[in-house]
Amino acid sequence: MNDNAKSHSKPDDALPAVILAAGEGNRLQKGNHGIPKPLTTLLGLTLLERAVLSCHQVGVQEFYVVTGCYEKEFIPQIKKLERRLGISIQVVHNPNWREGNGTSALAVSPYLTGPFLLVMCDDLFDPDILRCLMDAKDRANVCLLAVDRRTDRIFDLKEATKVRLNGQAITAIGKGLTPFDAVDTGLFLCQPFMFQALEKARFDGDGSLSAGVGRLVGDNKIRAVEIGNRIWLDVDTPESLSLAKSYLLAELSKPSDDGYVSRYINRPLSRRVSMLLAHTPLTPNAITFLSFLLCLSGAFLFSLGEYIWTLLAGLLTQLSSVVDGCDGEIARLKFRSSRFGAWLDTVLDRYADVAVAVGISYGYWLTHPHPLVWLAGVMALTGFLLSSYTKKEYALRYQHKHPGGVLNLLGKRDVRLFALFVGALLNRPFEALVLVGFFSHIVVAWSFLSIFPQRWHKT
Amino acid sequence: MNDNAKSHSKPDDALPAVILAAGEGNRLQKGNHGIPKPLTTLLGLTLLERAVLSCHQVGVQEFYVVTGCYEKEFIPQIKKLERRLGISIQVVHNPNWREGNGTSALAVSPYLTGPFLLVMCDDLFDPDILRCLMDAKDRANVCLLAVDRRTDRIFDLKEATKVRLNGQAITAIGKGLTPFDAVDTGLFLCQPFMFQALEKARFDGDGSLSAGVGRLVGDNKIRAVEIGNRIWLDVDTPESLSLAKSYLLAELSKPSDDGYVSRYINRPLSRRVSMLLAHTPLTPNAITFLSFLLCLSGAFLFSLGEYIWTLLAGLLTQLSSVVDGCDGEIARLKFRSSRFGAWLDTVLDRYADVAVAVGISYGYWLTHPHPLVWLAGVMALTGFLLSSYTKKEYALRYQHKHPGGVLNLLGKRDVRLFALFVGALLNRPFEALVLVGFFSHIVVAWSFLSIFPQRWHKT
Repeated sequence: MNDNAKSHSKPDDALPAVILAAGEGNRLQKGNHGIPKPLTTLLGLTLLERAVLSCHQVGVQEFYVVTGCYEKEFIPQIKKLERRLGISIQVVHNPNWREGNGTSALAVSPYLTGPFLLVMCDDLFDPDILRCLMDAKDRANVCLLAVDRRTDRIFDLKEATKVRLNGQAITAIGKGLTPFDAVDTGLFLCQPFMFQALEKARFDGDGSLSAGVGRLVGDNKIRAVEIGNRIWLDVDTPESLSLAKSYLLAELSKPSDDGYVSRYINRPLSRRVSMLLAHTPLTPNAITFLSFLLCLSGAFLFSLGEYIWTLLAGLLTQLSSVVDGCDGEIARLKFRSSRFGAWLDTVLDRYADVAVAVGISYGYWLTHPHPLVWLAGVMALTGFLLSSYTKKEYALRYQHKHPGGVLNLLGKRDVRLFALFVGALLNRPFEALVLVGFFSHIVVAWSFLSIFPQRWHKT
Repeated sequence: MNDNAKSHSKPDDALPAVILAAGEGNRLQKGNHGIPKPLTTLLGLTLLERAVLSCHQVGVQEFYVVTGCYEKEFIPQIKKLERRLGISIQVVHNPNWREGNGTSALAVSPYLTGPFLLVMCDDLFDPDILRCLMDAKDRANVCLLAVDRRTDRIFDLKEATKVRLNGQAITAIGKGLTPFDAVDTGLFLCQPFMFQALEKARFDGDGSLSAGVGRLVGDNKIRAVEIGNRIWLDVDTPESLSLAKSYLLAELSKPSDDGYVSRYINRPLSRRVSMLLAHTPLTPNAITFLSFLLCLSGAFLFSLGEYIWTLLAGLLTQLSSVVDGCDGEIARLKFRSSRFGAWLDTVLDRYADVAVAVGISYGYWLTHPHPLVWLAGVMALTGFLLSSYTKKEYALRYQHKHPGGVLNLLGKRDVRLFALFVGALLNRPFEALVLVGFFSHIVVAWSFLSIFPQRWHKT
């Protein structure tokens, strides 16, 4: 399943990111065997790793992790992240962490002279929210706070910091604020004058970030950026941790170019498999190969020609189709998406398709030794390859996806393999192969015919 | 041959174009059976058609054709162009055409209030020169004249208008100018104040364009834009007409992604075929189908299994490979490039490859009825399809061509079909098929292996 291709953007105007990981996090710790909150594992990655990798995904190359209650516990994780990303991460200790998270932000002030992203380590969030902050028009002059207007859907509304808005202007901020229009997500794009606001608030006896932000509100130096439908969650309690898990899994079903079988059968299964695989060190490319090998095994069993093997072959092929969804899912879950992986996955899928078509044809030829069997097999595998090829070639020429339609969705690999699976159950794999192969050529022809009328207008 | 994909750019800032076709053109007419010069045919299109289509290729949608000595002779051509491009072309008559081509430019002054392109109808030129003019930084404030610094390569230097340059500033212009730095190509991007300069020059007794341009030089209101290595030619005499023909044909060999066989064997042949086809009404897509049918016929003859048919099949396949270059050539010669055509061509090539592999396998199976023959055939055709697929998929994922290298060039279709042709000559088409097929899989594997070391750095 070739959906692990979301590429890392590295804009020229990438900002540094400050990640606050100084607190004690005692609410979560009770259910967490004494592990510091930033090191809580969430589907194979710690919260600290997720925060760094989320920032890296939107182009951040310069990191400051502020520690307080814990420090040396984080070092192995930080070393691991540095190796993986090929960057160096500055660890800044805040001895005053007990005074509030505003003092943790203040701890980086000697390092930063320009704008920066500010992220809470216990905050799970869609990296696109950072893109929204960076793309905001007025980012040069004011601080920006990402806010969520879906106040009815906040997990722990009582603990959340609320904001009152007038358009994009923030008129008030506070935990106990009523009425309020939106909730503070804890994701900021800050200007250096943020430090002065924090100093002032601390001087007045409140070392929290909210108090500093309150000063900016008074000076009209902070604006809200709405996050729309993007997910975020403050992971503070064991309950929110399991909610975070289901948020992440739900995000996996998002790729909209799934075929019908993928959407309704494979995806719900692969999500469960991915949840298990996330805790293993298996990389997305390793899973790609696993799916490939499953399909090759299926192809081999098909070639034996007997029902019991055909049945098993059908099951293996369908299982391979399910696992084929996991590489992309694990890639997204663990920030391991790569163009190379997506490319390899797609080409191996084609080889696997060929193997299955050859296996089925050979199995049938054993009892029906006629050259027409081979011609039909070649017709089918050519259809499999060219229905995909035609769409790729279209995308290359026109620089956008083929408009497709229902016929295209029905011609996709998930549907194809499922039809072969059903054929195997009925001990009619060859007939299924011929049908599906023929249908693939119809899809190719339709790809052209559906574009043809437009061609005179748009060359 | 999928090279007819140069798409028509339609920038938002498209300019109108003025095409001067008012002169008598008596130097060419002597050898031209009394046909007005703009209607002289050059490889299937008249000079007037070429001028309009060249401008259209760079996005022009608004046309003014200035007539003088001839007018009604042009109307059928203009109607044809209007139908083909789906636009309307304004014909402007200049009754004063005998006073010089400056008066022809003046004739459009009531129609134009902003900048416009000015083109001589007897000028054959690479449309990219117009792009250079439109992309020039200072196009908003001054007139621009495209000039050619290759003064040693001007066909009819005596008749050419020369310019003296100081950087991009034009310091003098004239036919008899010495010394000079470059030659006036007759291609302009004009500002409306050009009309005042032309009026002045005419008032002073010189109605030529050069005289008007001379005024602009004096006022420092015109700059030179160098055309680099792009071709242009003033088609004034029968000699320059045949030179224009060879210029156009030489341009056809330009696509740099040709394989070795294409470059050294097919292209020189296809150029000659295209020269003949240019005079027929065959469209590029019709030629694509012709090449496809030739290949299918070859595949059928291969399937008969006898040497005499195999020989003929080899010849037909190689001929198809040559004709496969013509569709793109005709498309470029006649401004008929389309993404649809390029897309169709590429997919039909793949179907033709499959047909040839099946034909050869079947022919061999007649005398060697063993399932391994089919497996080898499937291996070969899969290699053909996937070596192309892998490169397309790479281009889609990485948004640039696969770096390729020699192995990739050897794996291209031209080389493949030539190897089968040689195999057919030696009555060993199946052996050639297996070899070439196996090699195609090596190319696929190499595509990945050559990228692999980079993957850790660039995701």
